[in-house]
Amino acid sequence: MKFVLLGAGRIGQIHGKNIANHPDCQLLHIVDVYEDAAQKLAQELGAKVSSMEEALNDESVDAVIIASSTDTHADFIEASAKAGKAIFCEKPIDLDSERVAKCLKVVEQYDVPLALGFNRRFDPNFQSLKSQIDEGKIGQTELVVLTSRDPGPPPVDYIKKSGGLFRDMMIHDFDVAVWLLGEVPCEVMAYGSCFVNPAIGKAGDIDTAMVMLKTNSGKIAHINNSRRASYGYDQRIEVHGEKGSLLAQNVPLNTVIYSGENGIVSAKPLDFFLERYATAYQNELNNFINDIQKGHKPSPGGKEGKIALLLADAADQSYRSGQPIAIDI
Amino acid sequence: MKFVLLGAGRIGQIHGKNIANHPDCQLLHIVDVYEDAAQKLAQELGAKVSSMEEALNDESVDAVIIASSTDTHADFIEASAKAGKAIFCEKPIDLDSERVAKCLKVVEQYDVPLALGFNRRFDPNFQSLKSQIDEGKIGQTELVVLTSRDPGPPPVDYIKKSGGLFRDMMIHDFDVAVWLLGEVPCEVMAYGSCFVNPAIGKAGDIDTAMVMLKTNSGKIAHINNSRRASYGYDQRIEVHGEKGSLLAQNVPLNTVIYSGENGIVSAKPLDFFLERYATAYQNELNNFINDIQKGHKPSPGGKEGKIALLLADAADQSYRSGQPIAIDI
Amino acid sequence: MKFVLLGAGRIGQIHGKNIANHPDCQLLHIVDVYEDAAQKLAQELGAKVSSMEEALNDESVDAVIIASSTDTHADFIEASAKAGKAIFCEKPIDLDSERVAKCLKVVEQYDVPLALGFNRRFDPNFQSLKSQIDEGKIGQTELVVLTSRDPGPPPVDYIKKSGGLFRDMMIHDFDVAVWLLGEVPCEVMAYGSCFVNPAIGKAGDIDTAMVMLKTNSGKIAHINNSRRASYGYDQRIEVHGEKGSLLAQNVPLNTVIYSGENGIVSAKPLDFFLERYATAYQNELNNFINDIQKGHKPSPGGKEGKIALLLADAADQSYRSGQPIAIDI
Amino acid sequence: MKFVLLGAGRIGQIHGKNIANHPDCQLLHIVDVYEDAAQKLAQELGAKVSSMEEALNDESVDAVIIASSTDTHADFIEASAKAGKAIFCEKPIDLDSERVAKCLKVVEQYDVPLALGFNRRFDPNFQSLKSQIDEGKIGQTELVVLTSRDPGPPPVDYIKKSGGLFRDMMIHDFDVAVWLLGEVPCEVMAYGSCFVNPAIGKAGDIDTAMVMLKTNSGKIAHINNSRRASYGYDQRIEVHGEKGSLLAQNVPLNTVIYSGENGIVSAKPLDFFLERYATAYQNELNNFINDIQKGHKPSPGGKEGKIALLLADAADQSYRSGQPIAIDI
Repeated sequence: MKFVLLGAGRIGQIHGKNIANHPDCQLLHIVDVYEDAAQKLAQELGAKVSSMEEALNDESVDAVIIASSTDTHADFIEASAKAGKAIFCEKPIDLDSERVAKCLKVVEQYDVPLALGFNRRFDPNFQSLKSQIDEGKIGQTELVVLTSRDPGPPPVDYIKKSGGLFRDMMIHDFDVAVWLLGEVPCEVMAYGSCFVNPAIGKAGDIDTAMVMLKTNSGKIAHINNSRRASYGYDQRIEVHGEKGSLLAQNVPLNTVIYSGENGIVSAKPLDFFLERYATAYQNELNNFINDIQKGHKPSPGGKEGKIALLLADAADQSYRSGQPIAIDI
Repeated sequence: MKFVLLGAGRIGQIHGKNIANHPDCQLLHIVDVYEDAAQKLAQELGAKVSSMEEALNDESVDAVIIASSTDTHADFIEASAKAGKAIFCEKPIDLDSERVAKCLKVVEQYDVPLALGFNRRFDPNFQSLKSQIDEGKIGQTELVVLTSRDPGPPPVDYIKKSGGLFRDMMIHDFDVAVWLLGEVPCEVMAYGSCFVNPAIGKAGDIDTAMVMLKTNSGKIAHINNSRRASYGYDQRIEVHGEKGSLLAQNVPLNTVIYSGENGIVSAKPLDFFLERYATAYQNELNNFINDIQKGHKPSPGGKEGKIALLLADAADQSYRSGQPIAIDI
Repeated sequence: MKFVLLGAGRIGQIHGKNIANHPDCQLLHIVDVYEDAAQKLAQELGAKVSSMEEALNDESVDAVIIASSTDTHADFIEASAKAGKAIFCEKPIDLDSERVAKCLKVVEQYDVPLALGFNRRFDPNFQSLKSQIDEGKIGQTELVVLTSRDPGPPPVDYIKKSGGLFRDMMIHDFDVAVWLLGEVPCEVMAYGSCFVNPAIGKAGDIDTAMVMLKTNSGKIAHINNSRRASYGYDQRIEVHGEKGSLLAQNVPLNTVIYSGENGIVSAKPLDFFLERYATAYQNELNNFINDIQKGHKPSPGGKEGKIALLLADAADQSYRSGQPIAIDI
Repeated sequence: MKFVLLGAGRIGQIHGKNIANHPDCQLLHIVDVYEDAAQKLAQELGAKVSSMEEALNDESVDAVIIASSTDTHADFIEASAKAGKAIFCEKPIDLDSERVAKCLKVVEQYDVPLALGFNRRFDPNFQSLKSQIDEGKIGQTELVVLTSRDPGPPPVDYIKKSGGLFRDMMIHDFDVAVWLLGEVPCEVMAYGSCFVNPAIGKAGDIDTAMVMLKTNSGKIAHINNSRRASYGYDQRIEVHGEKGSLLAQNVPLNTVIYSGENGIVSAKPLDFFLERYATAYQNELNNFINDIQKGHKPSPGGKEGKIALLLADAADQSYRSGQPIAIDI
């Protein structure tokens, strides 16, 4: 399979390297408005720097990886769809639900496969947890508790364009909740606070939040998020069912335990999302490649992206109104 | 100190033995409508079976332990207060907030010390967690997550008289939340389901619940409860603050780890509240004795009992109305 | 059952209280050369201070607990045996194997039950490990690894009378090894060092040691000891068999985990043998009472005490000669 | 840097891929007597299949990776040294100490860098443990306990040519012991058994062993090995010092914990050495490349290989004679 990479930044580099190292794949074109970044990555990976037009017009290209800034995703999806390419796009499709709906219509019209980069679903630990649910080890899922705490807050400039905590950060947890519940929640209630950086509050956003979701069948999920965790990147899942519970713990930096006068000290969790989800990034790409090769519809795809965004919209509205918000899908 | 014990059932036996074993205490009277139970316990502990009147009229008696059925608590508190005795009462004072308020007025009028048996506050693990908060190890508390899952549901007959999950079971977590937040929440939102036993639902109650609470200063707490945990008694606390997190894990039956073909297997948590909180029951009684001897006002006392019940009432109302409920104290 | 307690020191107080609290037992006499200690304990437990003669001549007495200093054990065992009492004696019977052999002959002659206080066998964690071996969970035992590290060294004056590390400290591990191997080792090899306190070395002893034992059937055990562990009392057992491994970990002070900038910190192990083995002391006494009541021969008894001492003698000889020493039983 | 790879088997493939993926390295030649294996790997990695002569005569080649069968190592080291190439050789240099000594003389004579593939030293967990020792966190090292248990035994045909458990398997632990003790032991005592497969015993070898080592300064180390661990690949290190202990635990397959009726179940350790030490293989190669580029003498190198083999020889002799064996270096 032959690929175009749109975006040579932090996450584009990850995807680019994973394609270049894949035995069945070839990275042909890299497109980025920052030519230096594109040039550097192209050289390292044996690709060439192209314009969007050149890249999408190249008939040998099978698929496009969209790893550019969020505000370009919908446009680039549409352009790639029109060029008939399979698409792997970093989350989110867009921060605006209407724009997402319009974009997904184009994808549908041109009938191209679209995969969305919800990396949590491809983390080996979370995958093992999900498999154990699917094997029936805990019976019917009843309660889900998701904890997601970043090591530190992003710059306030990023916050301002991010769509807010619910759309930028908790969107991952909304997608995980839907994945684990096996059902789209029918209602969301959200509380939020600004504890980490007052400038985030001034920018109209929050940095700390708790949410509850319920489904029509009575399942209930809880999510808590913070833009700060002094001990590293806190990413845990807990699921309770009729026959037991499953807990995916954090991934520690190493397995060493120090016992001394001040206690028993083990290593902190992996500190950074690129390390924590390094295998997830490989897995999601391998999964995409496999889906395309076998003609499967990629999942998570446009629909999952749309649902997670609707949940984030509703949570935001709940936080702002102080009321539970019904989900209408 | 000389004691009367009202109630010779399961929890009365615990308290009775703890008094009998305490070097500074003597158990004089046991009162129970079931004379056999009273007689058996009295014999074991070297006390005598008395009527309520005899027991409370005994001028040598310093304090009364109320471990009878919930519907007798308020009456017995009032009777003990009128007799001028110090009172240790199992939670709750009553299931009805107005009855509680009336009862507390009597306590105030006769100016007797009243301690309430919120055992969680006296568990050594939870006390260590609280001490580490108080020492400033995590800075300002921001988020609290409480997990409380019983090994199995009580009989439906018990459920019917229990006041419902929020007043009977989650009341402990409401008290813990207030204790850890250092602040009474200003709003509660509750979701509930019936997964464990349909008969509980038919009785108008739920067996599975999630709640969120927020405070005026922006702190947020989450509680999840289930009447069933196939792996034992699940009692955990997690607190996140500016400088870190504290987690009180379950107490395992033993420290043995088996490594075999099917995985690495460690022991389940202690299965029963009388075992899990055995030390807590001793600690709460020692604390009561110490408070009385030193003339301190017991804590948790009537006020804490009232607050926890108000939160339970509000949670119940939230679950039934589907709306967040403001707490008015 | 009616008891005499010989010795009102640290360990005598533990046993005395456990007898006094036992529903089927009564502590009649306490004997100690330090009358103040005897008087104080007698008052607390409702016993009386007696001379050895008075106590052993009391025909109502069923059993004697020997918790006096090591150099009195053999004499007191013999005196108690001659008085026809059941005997529970703290380890060791004596530091000299010949004296032990002579003493056990007296016990045999008077045909009284003798239990020896090897507390490790009664620790609930180690008992669970042993049960899992007996249930066949790891198949045939192949390798045993025992770790035993005291929080800090005893005074050098104690060391001088202790019989040395192998007879005073590692004797517990020798007994545990025999218990777990199900076989008496046929050879011992020992290495020792003095790292903790040079005065221990000057006194002719060591404070750090490693030992290997092998059995005729090919099982191998390893023991490591240190008189010092800055993080508390380190007491672990690891057993490997055909079908898996069993590990009994340390017992932590509490279950709280602190996550902060410097790592993930959990509580240290219980620091003191009286706390660590509090339940074991109760269990061993209950077991003794049960054995006497049912007419069972107590185990561990004189034979187990003799074997452990022989292993300690051999280890000491190995350490001093630099050669493996065959065990001749 | 340009490389030759000698050996295209399991471990050769690992090293080959790591070179091919390294930004500063190029794999030019692959040499293997099994041409098919060489051809397949060469195609995958963009190298060419060459004869030993062609490869070593290629003047553009900087370094040789020796990953062929053990009996070829010494010859290939000498040939590479004579060709003036830097050498990275899988352990061991040879199973015969005299052959090793002769080989190292050739390396010295031609003055080429020689690195030896003791992968444990490059495992991130063990490296973190070693760093914490070097930072002084436990003070002076006193005791070392090494556990190394393979998931299952190799074929008896392999055993026969392996040099025996001490030279084939425990040699890793001997090297780790020297690394952690910071001192070459002065004496070894070994016990061994055959529990896993009687055919291993018939072949004159053992499959289960325990060893103790002591150093002149009084440090003591223990190693236990088994050719079988039903729960996976058991690779742990424990070090005790004056101020505390360090423990490197196993690396689990994932972080998921299942709580159910039969206990609390977590994932088994990584099952296979190629997975468990995948990062170690990358690290050791990067370290070699770095040493060569900076002109550093590689470590572990010939000297470390020689020491580990001497310890293995002594352990074997100890096991066979039943006596402790002095190490003469």
